[in-house]
Amino acid sequence: MDIRILEGVFDANERIASENEALFRENGVLAMNLMASPGAGKTSLVSRTLEMLSGKVSIGVIEGDIASSVDAEKIKSYGVPVVQINTGGACHLDAAMIREALGHLDLPSLDLLIIENVGNLVCPAEFNLGEGLRVMILSVAEGHDKPLKYPLMFSQSHVLLVNKIDLLGMSDFDVGTLRETVRRMNPAMVIFEVSCRTGEGLPAWAEWLERMVRERKNQQRM
Amino acid sequence: MDIRILEGVFDANERIASENEALFRENGVLAMNLMASPGAGKTSLVSRTLEMLSGKVSIGVIEGDIASSVDAEKIKSYGVPVVQINTGGACHLDAAMIREALGHLDLPSLDLLIIENVGNLVCPAEFNLGEGLRVMILSVAEGHDKPLKYPLMFSQSHVLLVNKIDLLGMSDFDVGTLRETVRRMNPAMVIFEVSCRTGEGLPAWAEWLERMVRERKNQQRM
Repeated sequence: MDIRILEGVFDANERIASENEALFRENGVLAMNLMASPGAGKTSLVSRTLEMLSGKVSIGVIEGDIASSVDAEKIKSYGVPVVQINTGGACHLDAAMIREALGHLDLPSLDLLIIENVGNLVCPAEFNLGEGLRVMILSVAEGHDKPLKYPLMFSQSHVLLVNKIDLLGMSDFDVGTLRETVRRMNPAMVIFEVSCRTGEGLPAWAEWLERMVRERKNQQRM
Repeated sequence: MDIRILEGVFDANERIASENEALFRENGVLAMNLMASPGAGKTSLVSRTLEMLSGKVSIGVIEGDIASSVDAEKIKSYGVPVVQINTGGACHLDAAMIREALGHLDLPSLDLLIIENVGNLVCPAEFNLGEGLRVMILSVAEGHDKPLKYPLMFSQSHVLLVNKIDLLGMSDFDVGTLRETVRRMNPAMVIFEVSCRTGEGLPAWAEWLERMVRERKNQQRM
C-alpha cells in the first residue's frame, strides 16, 4: 500500500505566497491573478489589456497552462516579458510555481504582473499566489447561475468581468439576475460588462486597472 | 506543523470504482460520466437526452455540484429518479460519492445512469467513477484550441459533444481544426456536433446512446 507523508499543502502554499506578496510590495508591482473557466476569454482579456495600457504601464505576464505554450506565443507578440508555466497535470497554479517564474522576470522594471491561471472555476480559488488583485471572468455563454455553483471563486475575487456580452441576444443570460446573486455573495465585488471581441466596455476596465496600479506605486513610496 | 498520513488517494478511488463498475455490470446499467467546463451545457444535454429517450430507456441521474441543487430541481421535472451530490468544495466527483448515491437509486430498474460531474475540464478526468462511458462536452464559445490545453480530458473520453454550434457564425471556432487535433490525440473518439438550444444534431447522439445501452443489456444476458 502506498503511504505518503505530506506537509499541510495549504500551509506550505500560504508561507510561499506571503514571500511572493512581500516581493511584489517591495517592488511596487501589482500582481493580478486572472481566473476563469476554459474558454471564458482569459488570454483575449490579457491581449486587450496589453493593447490598452501600452506605453502607460509596464506589464509582465505569467501564463499558466497544464500543457502547451499556445497562450505564451500569443502574448509574446505584444513585446512584453512572458513566462509560461506548464503545470504538467495540476489543475491550478500555486505559490511555488509563481516564485520560480519570478526568477525569470525583472520585477523592479514592472508595474503590473498579470498571472493567467489554469482554466478552472474551482481549484485556482483555493491557492493564494501572493497576488494583490483577484480578477475572474464569467462568459455570457456559461450562464448566469454560476455564482451559486462555484461560490468560492465568486466570493473571493475582487473583480468580475462579464465577458462576451455581444452574445447576450443569443442566450437567456440575465445580467440583472447575475448582479443580484453576486451582490448577496460578495457586496464589494467590482463588475464590468465587456466584450473582448467587439471591445465594448473594455476602456472602463483598463482605466480602473491603471488606477489600481498607480495606487500600488503610491503605497510603495509612502 | 500539520502532518497528515494519507492512503494513496488514487488507489483508494480505483478500488471503489471497481466495485461500482461490478454493480453496474451485474445490473446491466450503462453508467455515463458527463464532464465539461462550467456552462458548456451539461444540464441542457441531460434534459434533451431525457426528452429524446423517454419511453425507450429507463434513466436515472446523479447531479454533482460543489453547492446548490439548481440542476437536480431542473432534472426532477422530467419525472426520473435523481440524486444530488454536493461535494462541499471538492472540484470533482469520486467513486465513493457515487457509491453513496447508488444507495438512493433502484439500480435494477435502470438501463442508463447519467452522472453529471462538477463543471471542470481538469480534475474529473483523473477520478474513475466505475463508469462504462465517458462523455465530454466542449462548447463552441470555449474555442477550438482546448484539446492542447486540457489533454487528459480529451484523451480519456469516449465521446466529444461539440455543443452550441448555433454560435459558430459568432466566433472564430473552426470545427475542422478541432477534429484534426482530436484525431491525433484520441483517434477512437466519437464526435457529435450539436446545439442543445436549437436541437440540431441531437437525434444522432440519442440514437447512438440508445444503441450503447442495448449493447450493455445484451452483454448482461450473455
